[in-house]
Amino acid sequence: MIDHDAFPIEPWRIRETRLDLDLLAQSESIFALSNGHIGLRGNLDEGEPHGLPGTYLNSFYETRALPYAETGFGYPEAGQTIVDITNGKLLRLLVDDEPFDIRYGELIDHERVLDLRAGILTRVAQWRSPAGKQVKITSTRLVSLTQRSVAAIEYVVEAVDEFSLVTVQSELVANEDQPEMSSDPRVAAGLDHPLEAVSHEHTEHSGLLVHQTRNSGLMMAAAMDHEVEVPGRVEVTTEARADVARTTVICGLRPGQKLRIVKYLAYGWSSLRSRPALRDQVAGALAGARYSGWQGLLDAQRAYLDEFWDAADVEVWGDPDRQQAVRFGLFHVLQASARAERRAIGGKGLTGTGYDGHAFWDTEGFVLPVLTYTKPHAAADALRWRAATLDLAKDRAEQLGLAGASFPWRTIRGEECSAYWPAATAAWHINADIAMAYERYRLVAGDDSLERECGLSVLVETARLWISLGHHDRHGVWHLDGVTGPDEYTALASDNVFTNLMAALNLRVAADACRRHPDGAAAIGVTTEETAAWRDAAAAVHIPFDRELGVHSQSEGFTSLAEWDFTENTNYPLLLHEHYVRLYPAQVLKQADLVLAMHWQSHAFTAEQKAHNVDYYERRTTRDSSLSACTQAVLCAEVGHLELAHDYAYEAALIDLRDLHHNTRDGLHMASLAGAWIALVAGFGGLRDDEGVLTLDPHLPDGIDRLRFRLRWSEFRLTVDATHAEVIYSLRDGPHSHLTIRHAGAELTVSTQEPTTVAVHVRKPLLPAPSQPPGREPIRRRLGSDVTS
Amino acid sequence: MIDHDAFPIEPWRIRETRLDLDLLAQSESIFALSNGHIGLRGNLDEGEPHGLPGTYLNSFYETRALPYAETGFGYPEAGQTIVDITNGKLLRLLVDDEPFDIRYGELIDHERVLDLRAGILTRVAQWRSPAGKQVKITSTRLVSLTQRSVAAIEYVVEAVDEFSLVTVQSELVANEDQPEMSSDPRVAAGLDHPLEAVSHEHTEHSGLLVHQTRNSGLMMAAAMDHEVEVPGRVEVTTEARADVARTTVICGLRPGQKLRIVKYLAYGWSSLRSRPALRDQVAGALAGARYSGWQGLLDAQRAYLDEFWDAADVEVWGDPDRQQAVRFGLFHVLQASARAERRAIGGKGLTGTGYDGHAFWDTEGFVLPVLTYTKPHAAADALRWRAATLDLAKDRAEQLGLAGASFPWRTIRGEECSAYWPAATAAWHINADIAMAYERYRLVAGDDSLERECGLSVLVETARLWISLGHHDRHGVWHLDGVTGPDEYTALASDNVFTNLMAALNLRVAADACRRHPDGAAAIGVTTEETAAWRDAAAAVHIPFDRELGVHSQSEGFTSLAEWDFTENTNYPLLLHEHYVRLYPAQVLKQADLVLAMHWQSHAFTAEQKAHNVDYYERRTTRDSSLSACTQAVLCAEVGHLELAHDYAYEAALIDLRDLHHNTRDGLHMASLAGAWIALVAGFGGLRDDEGVLTLDPHLPDGIDRLRFRLRWSEFRLTVDATHAEVIYSLRDGPHSHLTIRHAGAELTVSTQEPTTVAVHVRKPLLPAPSQPPGREPIRRRLGSDVTS
Repeated sequence: MIDHDAFPIEPWRIRETRLDLDLLAQSESIFALSNGHIGLRGNLDEGEPHGLPGTYLNSFYETRALPYAETGFGYPEAGQTIVDITNGKLLRLLVDDEPFDIRYGELIDHERVLDLRAGILTRVAQWRSPAGKQVKITSTRLVSLTQRSVAAIEYVVEAVDEFSLVTVQSELVANEDQPEMSSDPRVAAGLDHPLEAVSHEHTEHSGLLVHQTRNSGLMMAAAMDHEVEVPGRVEVTTEARADVARTTVICGLRPGQKLRIVKYLAYGWSSLRSRPALRDQVAGALAGARYSGWQGLLDAQRAYLDEFWDAADVEVWGDPDRQQAVRFGLFHVLQASARAERRAIGGKGLTGTGYDGHAFWDTEGFVLPVLTYTKPHAAADALRWRAATLDLAKDRAEQLGLAGASFPWRTIRGEECSAYWPAATAAWHINADIAMAYERYRLVAGDDSLERECGLSVLVETARLWISLGHHDRHGVWHLDGVTGPDEYTALASDNVFTNLMAALNLRVAADACRRHPDGAAAIGVTTEETAAWRDAAAAVHIPFDRELGVHSQSEGFTSLAEWDFTENTNYPLLLHEHYVRLYPAQVLKQADLVLAMHWQSHAFTAEQKAHNVDYYERRTTRDSSLSACTQAVLCAEVGHLELAHDYAYEAALIDLRDLHHNTRDGLHMASLAGAWIALVAGFGGLRDDEGVLTLDPHLPDGIDRLRFRLRWSEFRLTVDATHAEVIYSLRDGPHSHLTIRHAGAELTVSTQEPTTVAVHVRKPLLPAPSQPPGREPIRRRLGSDVTS
Repeated sequence: MIDHDAFPIEPWRIRETRLDLDLLAQSESIFALSNGHIGLRGNLDEGEPHGLPGTYLNSFYETRALPYAETGFGYPEAGQTIVDITNGKLLRLLVDDEPFDIRYGELIDHERVLDLRAGILTRVAQWRSPAGKQVKITSTRLVSLTQRSVAAIEYVVEAVDEFSLVTVQSELVANEDQPEMSSDPRVAAGLDHPLEAVSHEHTEHSGLLVHQTRNSGLMMAAAMDHEVEVPGRVEVTTEARADVARTTVICGLRPGQKLRIVKYLAYGWSSLRSRPALRDQVAGALAGARYSGWQGLLDAQRAYLDEFWDAADVEVWGDPDRQQAVRFGLFHVLQASARAERRAIGGKGLTGTGYDGHAFWDTEGFVLPVLTYTKPHAAADALRWRAATLDLAKDRAEQLGLAGASFPWRTIRGEECSAYWPAATAAWHINADIAMAYERYRLVAGDDSLERECGLSVLVETARLWISLGHHDRHGVWHLDGVTGPDEYTALASDNVFTNLMAALNLRVAADACRRHPDGAAAIGVTTEETAAWRDAAAAVHIPFDRELGVHSQSEGFTSLAEWDFTENTNYPLLLHEHYVRLYPAQVLKQADLVLAMHWQSHAFTAEQKAHNVDYYERRTTRDSSLSACTQAVLCAEVGHLELAHDYAYEAALIDLRDLHHNTRDGLHMASLAGAWIALVAGFGGLRDDEGVLTLDPHLPDGIDRLRFRLRWSEFRLTVDATHAEVIYSLRDGPHSHLTIRHAGAELTVSTQEPTTVAVHVRKPLLPAPSQPPGREPIRRRLGSDVTS
């Protein structure tokens, strides 16, 4: 838990006012900078102390054997683990003969600021060395959103009270030592010195190292160059060895004098290109960075972000906590995806090694909805990445004796990397989640060029998978047995409602896409008989409903399972204290499952069913998954439990800023950060799109006075500005002058000419707000006023 | 597949007429000797060539870490693997300067015979060395059934055609090199040099080595001594080092002269006793062996087996194949258990390292039924072993948050060693299988002293487990969800019929036992409320039945799952070619499950239900488990498919003699060998005991003219002698002069005075004989006449 004092709430900045070594690893994740290609954890410039040193390149991984004490057919043999690559962040400082290390001497002042509009991390430290010399260090770090291969650091040292001899060692270091790994299954596998040196070179001001992974055979290059400004004499030298390149800058500073170093960094990797090609690539990137110069990089960064915020910002009046958090979330979602460019968006982005750097359904299920409405270009790139792995997914399906394509539960490059199949291979829904993401992109972008380019084959092959997975019973009802839905405390169930609805969606969307692209469909062998079979299965899908209780059964028989024996002493997360053999056959949920179905397939449920289902599942959901709170917020808002929804929105938004799941050290929870947006926009804004229509229905909780958010829809930009009384829709751009949306269940045409103001449709809850398992009431309630704002 | 020619069928012997190197590993398992404490694989005296060198001591294991790529709460961290201990079988021979090795020179004649009445393995080899010297070697090996720590070998070398200098090196060798292991999950984990030398000593004729395992910390001692007889001068010397003790015998032999060596071996191990105590223990055992002498050991062995066969033999007229096989099976079951004495009876006995030497439910489910009726003392000892592990089982239950005791799915010492919980921890039925074995022992032995001694606590703690696993639904019906029944191609199902019936049995038996032993029950906290709850749950247990199809559903919803798409090209066993994610949600069975329930809980099904259930499940059962054929034989016989039953009896009986599952090299299938007896006695003899009454109903297939078998029941010995027309019951011994049994559904009182002859009750099948999945028709049918006899 990170408390408020060290991180005061400000609308556009994350500011740390003092350095707490116990929170160092968490702050490294929070202050991570990335553009989706390069990721730099917020490690201190001088390298030590650190929680987890981390520098990453998207999809630069090492393979490792996955061990099984008892193996089985089709278990993946090789895992993929993100590699801590050559660290270019390092700038070690010596003041006279003493190294700047905040654990020694006196740290007079230390502040770090992540500026969400500037896209930079700034650090100011005032330090007195053990020998009594005082210096002020100001460093500013960026990972360029406009120059994909470039990062840069401006490092300024100022002598405060007396003359000091100052030495800065600016380094590239490969194969950094890693801290010991935990036994928590959610943490990454450790890799010991994964990089083999290929070559190294240097000039007076610059250095370049090329390395290669042992097993995956990927080659990477890292290069640095420096601009040095200082009054008086300065000596700059560079040396390079296999795993280290070091530029040393020495000068003397009188009080008030400053040494300013701009360190330009360039990174590149390839599985194909030669060492000289890669070497030239990073040298070229470095030249581009020097050409832009430090100020040029800063300006471009600001311009890029200004454009982003103009179309993506969410404004929250009356709730500064959530205001800060939703922007923090949007910023990191952007960082994870902006320049990923047909590479995976990992569950932690490029902020840490948690989950081995793997991408899950989090991407299509939680991150892409946000990007599709706010940065559609990045969403399209992520979908192109999935499509690029289609052949691997088809191979996997074939290995499993199935038709079509089976996308991996967790992966970096596209191969299945999960070693626990009941919560992975059996979680077939990821295939439908991907299909839904394509369909949403088509709707929101308002054109089907991406579908034509690559979506069609993904939709067709996933539809084929579903047909080979499902079967009609003797009464003609279509079933999916032995599946695991989103809730990982139940596995291998029959007719999971979420999975069945999503599979039906996938089948229908694929059939529709084939109708739109008859030639493309014919080219991959789709016949009208095949699409008819898809529609038939979708129409016959079984949706378990418990008539006695009047609620949907998450999966067949779920509502007849034993209740979990929650007590005041129950320890969470349950997965670290209970065996799956106990969790699976009990009515206990790790995360929203049926409730998620009611969000993503809203039209399949009546208002009354939603109210009763929320009531039923709320009481049984532990929220042990970080994916859960935002969905609970959305549905609680829909059924009128607005205060409860507000609490859940808090959890989704603050997960990393407050380290609510105690694992922010391993990296940020991208899906939950996206969930901060989802909780506000889909929850209090009422955004739905499952019927192909932009649907909104704003309704605010007491704690939020006004909510204003921006959406893209078919080349329009729409601003939604809601108070407790009314909603103002403002339309910009667009292919036409009018757009018909659905507001509070009724059609509403809005115009680019002038804003449209309508009344809030007040929703009354059908049932009283439900309780949660003991100890799992929303965290804001448990903590009381110290975290409310 | 082992064909007939090399193994002619004889009623009391397994005779191998020529040495086939491709079948060497299989023959080592078949010719393994054991007394349940010591196990010697049938390796050649000279050590090489070998398939798998193997010398074992019951429960002498090494621990190894169980690796998990993704771990979970409660996963066992340490596995136990049987260790290939110090090999005392080695007798290397040099003829002049050339080593006797059947791969060189000329093997003129080679025969091995396992004599099931004498309890010895004899080998005769005539060999001409590359230099042309001919010798005849006759070796006879035994593992004493009467002296638990002793094995012995009589080794005779005769010069045939000219004078030869003969050197015999008789050895103890620790840490033998092991062949490479396969990736088949059913094979053992390899251990590299698991023994650390503790001490070694020797005299002129003898040697002794003490070793210790690295991790499990068990200490073992092996010792040898020799008697040497030869005309003329002989030199005998012994040396010893850390891992080798070697006695060298050198002499010259003229044509017709013989060198005879008797090698006595003694083995012991302990987790507690000191090195000197262990050393003295084996020295003492060796002294005992020398005192008996070779002939004394032979005589005692024969006497022990005479007594066994007198009470256990099964005679089969008209079917020599099965005659040999059932005796082979009984012999190995006896070898695995005779002197195990409160140690586990492994799934492979002590014949190989398959399944790491672990004991499974095979013991209580298949081996103990046979022992209980034929060698009850050994059955009681095995049950005492289980009871000795009760505290470990209680610890495991507590770890899982359950009451009572949860016995391990696979283990050597008692700790759970399974690394794949869906087919292990979730297979709770093993607890009820154990309870059933206690109850059967009580019934058959006719007294409850074992129950009082240790059974009661096992029954109570397993009953407590079931209560904490199950739950009543809102209609008062009692369910067990998330369980895996015997069929391992379905897992984590609800209300598996087998498991539910066995759990109910366990609950009732425990309640009855508490009534018999009120003081013992009170001492472990059992109240009348508790036993009432047990009876209530048992009475309310849910038994899924598909009314539309008129068959029981193996588990809830099973009969609505997709059918498996069997084709002519289906590869078996499916587990090596299909992912569990596909197998689990399909109507495909690895092994009898519901059909086993109809055997063990026969009274819970009507004759009509049995007929329909057999018909339904036969068509969906792959028999990929070696445990299946005997059960299918039993139920096919009961519903009148006698020829099909006969075919299944063949498979159960010949599994190892014909290597039907292609893994006899790793050790014999004890449960299937016991199944040879079960198929005949429960199948064609109709033996049932699930209602507490000795129930018989003999009915022979065409291919068997007459079947005579022996049973113990409450101090009686009963011989059942059946032809196609009539059955003669002969009663011996016993506490009274009369015994009331049930014959063909009606009560029948038999007397010790004279045999009772009754007519066979002819059974007519209700339905035609069912078919099996393609490629899984009984093997005798597939192979045609070459294996019929």
